Amino acid sequence: MSDTPRWRDLIVTLDDHGLNVLADAASVAVASLQRPTSGPRSNLTPRALHELITSLEICPDDGVDLDTVLADLGSMVWAHGVVPSDPACVAHLHPPTLVPAVVTELAIAATNQSMDSWDQAPAATEVELHLMSWLVRLLAMPETGSGVMTSGGTASNVLALTLARSWAAAKIDVDVLKSGLPPAARNWRILCSDQAHFSIQRASAELGLGRDAVIAVATTSTGSMDVTALDDVLERMTRDGLQPIAVVGTAGTTDLGAIDPLAAIAERARRYDAWFHVDAAVAGALLLSNRLRPELSGIELADSATIDFHKLWFQPFNASALVVRDVQRFDLLRVKSNYLDRGDELEGMVNLVGRSLDTSRRFDAAKVTASLRTLGRHALAEMLEQLVDLSQYAGSVIRAHPQLELLAPPASVMCVFDAIGADADDLRSVQQRLLARGEMVLGRTEIKGRAALKLTFMNPLSTSDDVDHLVDMVVRELDAVVGSN
Amino acid sequence: MSDTPRWRDLIVTLDDHGLNVLADAASVAVASLQRPTSGPRSNLTPRALHELITSLEICPDDGVDLDTVLADLGSMVWAHGVVPSDPACVAHLHPPTLVPAVVTELAIAATNQSMDSWDQAPAATEVELHLMSWLVRLLAMPETGSGVMTSGGTASNVLALTLARSWAAAKIDVDVLKSGLPPAARNWRILCSDQAHFSIQRASAELGLGRDAVIAVATTSTGSMDVTALDDVLERMTRDGLQPIAVVGTAGTTDLGAIDPLAAIAERARRYDAWFHVDAAVAGALLLSNRLRPELSGIELADSATIDFHKLWFQPFNASALVVRDVQRFDLLRVKSNYLDRGDELEGMVNLVGRSLDTSRRFDAAKVTASLRTLGRHALAEMLEQLVDLSQYAGSVIRAHPQLELLAPPASVMCVFDAIGADADDLRSVQQRLLARGEMVLGRTEIKGRAALKLTFMNPLSTSDDVDHLVDMVVRELDAVVGSN
Repeated sequence: MSDTPRWRDLIVTLDDHGLNVLADAASVAVASLQRPTSGPRSNLTPRALHELITSLEICPDDGVDLDTVLADLGSMVWAHGVVPSDPACVAHLHPPTLVPAVVTELAIAATNQSMDSWDQAPAATEVELHLMSWLVRLLAMPETGSGVMTSGGTASNVLALTLARSWAAAKIDVDVLKSGLPPAARNWRILCSDQAHFSIQRASAELGLGRDAVIAVATTSTGSMDVTALDDVLERMTRDGLQPIAVVGTAGTTDLGAIDPLAAIAERARRYDAWFHVDAAVAGALLLSNRLRPELSGIELADSATIDFHKLWFQPFNASALVVRDVQRFDLLRVKSNYLDRGDELEGMVNLVGRSLDTSRRFDAAKVTASLRTLGRHALAEMLEQLVDLSQYAGSVIRAHPQLELLAPPASVMCVFDAIGADADDLRSVQQRLLARGEMVLGRTEIKGRAALKLTFMNPLSTSDDVDHLVDMVVRELDAVVGSN
Repeated sequence: MSDTPRWRDLIVTLDDHGLNVLADAASVAVASLQRPTSGPRSNLTPRALHELITSLEICPDDGVDLDTVLADLGSMVWAHGVVPSDPACVAHLHPPTLVPAVVTELAIAATNQSMDSWDQAPAATEVELHLMSWLVRLLAMPETGSGVMTSGGTASNVLALTLARSWAAAKIDVDVLKSGLPPAARNWRILCSDQAHFSIQRASAELGLGRDAVIAVATTSTGSMDVTALDDVLERMTRDGLQPIAVVGTAGTTDLGAIDPLAAIAERARRYDAWFHVDAAVAGALLLSNRLRPELSGIELADSATIDFHKLWFQPFNASALVVRDVQRFDLLRVKSNYLDRGDELEGMVNLVGRSLDTSRRFDAAKVTASLRTLGRHALAEMLEQLVDLSQYAGSVIRAHPQLELLAPPASVMCVFDAIGADADDLRSVQQRLLARGEMVLGRTEIKGRAALKLTFMNPLSTSDDVDHLVDMVVRELDAVVGSN
């Protein structure tokens, strides 16, 4: 037995020995991956799962063999997870992931660059900037545009509205980050549709404006913003002395996948001198497809746009981006840090901390870049089109079904429906019973106050047969629930 | 040639075939890892690096072979990154990472649980909660405590101060998240030391209070908060009608590693009915060591505490936690989401979205848990003690050196110093030249307005010989810079 402490071999080094240790451990980690024996999750109850997991000792005095730790993760955690690649995992915008992204995650963690400063991430900083420039071009924004990676759509939306708030304040010569909200802020409002993501309200709450400062504009029956309603709201606000500091267009609502009329909203935002943010967390990927791209027309007019790579770009969490139409907009956020961003570095040394609400930050741009390069645009377009086609097909099956009622024609990748003769409690039972037995992870939501079930298609490997099967399962469960009433 | 599109094999599935594909790709990813040929980074200029990286096509129409993509990442990105395990990478709190964490990152990405709702992360939710309970016990907080993982220390501090703001508002019957900041908020102040992390100011800015609402309390020569100064500030505030809504104690300042007198601060916070937050992003790990633990005495009295696993717990970015002394404090944040957190689920189904500022969220708790279990507490304590000893040794070498002046006795893992006869510009040149040549990633900061250089010890594999060598390199470079003046 050597006296060398065991931890020496557990620190990642990039020499030959270190790479051998890492390669061995990686193959054990892959071999330890498990999934539930059938369906998208196991049938353990929350209580049983609690008992199982709390039997693990988090930090024993003396460490446990790595192979055992990974095997335990496999049998106790992965085996009782949810499987996003299972055709019956259709509740959320929760994608299966791509091989190039997953293995690049390992490389990201082994090399551990931190995106806040150039001297912690020299090449990585350039990769993130390069990816953002590509995204700007995809969005057809001006060349002045750039962006930053964030931890998710919520964080991207919060960052966008932080910039919008500073923008509004600057117009009245207030540095809101320095001196706080001015009295005028009582009249500031953020507009979005009544189907916009709740993170818009959360952002307004975080920023000190409150959820009440968000005005929900009515939507049409398809769930996209009603421009006439927007005009009414704006006129009423003018009369009431209220100021729209930001108008948010949603490109892909969470429940219906609806895309707001972006160009029309952009025109109103410009007229009222409001920041135009597009939350394209859901549908931004459609830009990759020539067939689907026209649906996002107008996004190129945005002051900022949220793109979630961890949705329809099939990236592991977390990977989102906020893009702005002019990189100088990030100056609205800039904080000088004595140790990270002094401003007296060599030319070309960009410290990304100046455009982020985070400090230390993971090099998530690497996995996105690896995925885009490996898949290529045509393949990604094909995958998206397959998902859109699947949801169209699901819509037609549900429309044709005597017991089901489609609540809106499917846009993008989801399909929302109700069951005739079933109340909200019945729908809840259907969803909870399927979840409890591990047979299906079905979505459940509310559309304009009406309870609904939801299928979200995130797996391009799913087929129309899978859709038929899912609808059958839901109907069978409905019969069981309603029949037992 | 098959007509099956190539993308079908690039989606992660957890069947035998899928695991084989993943295992092969993982071994290629590990083999592609490279590091600069010598030193902690290559000597490419920012401009050359820009040219190199922008020569990569981000998203070609047709994908590139995965092996090629990974090899390019190796030769173009990893080879020009910074190497946190290099003994000369000493600028920031930027750790080398642990093998169990790195390979678990792969598993996290392959299984892609999302922590916002139980039905996207059943076992993962229990793991995160179990890890948080363990952390609560380590902090010696009451059993009512719990926590949530966040993307970093900044996010944890923002979450803490968001809760503190709601707490203050609730006392005057205001739901600040709903109705925005009340007029009384003009008198709200957040107190922290003048060495606290800039994220406290950023949080105050984000929350609409402004950086000006943060009152910096003077520190002693070691960089820890001066309690007499705190008392003076509090008395003055009372006279001026200002209300301290939160007092932040720092456990491990960014530059000096200083730990504030937490118990004394807790007593003042209680007396003034202010939220007591401890930013233990830097020094929280010291709790693992029986020898170092007493330095954090008083942390058990905190209302909330930030712990950064991606600092002295050797986790890859991102991995931070915010712990609260009573899980019900998260109710201050709670948002009902129609699709994620309806509150009508089966008993025991916890949807963590209710305690987070994020929505989709990565299962970072898995890598932390895998690391803690594999290393064990004794090994982690030994690693930390080694780092503290290294910084003590560096302090003694610098103190004894005729050309250098130690600015404060080293606390925790860093060592800050000045050079006799050198001005701020000289120090800048030293740091930038070493960085440009790729020989050393040295820290540079300002302590109370005085320019300084900084060594941050994050690699337990480093030795006292390495420290001698680093000091020699700095002195040689100083001679070159000052000699050429």
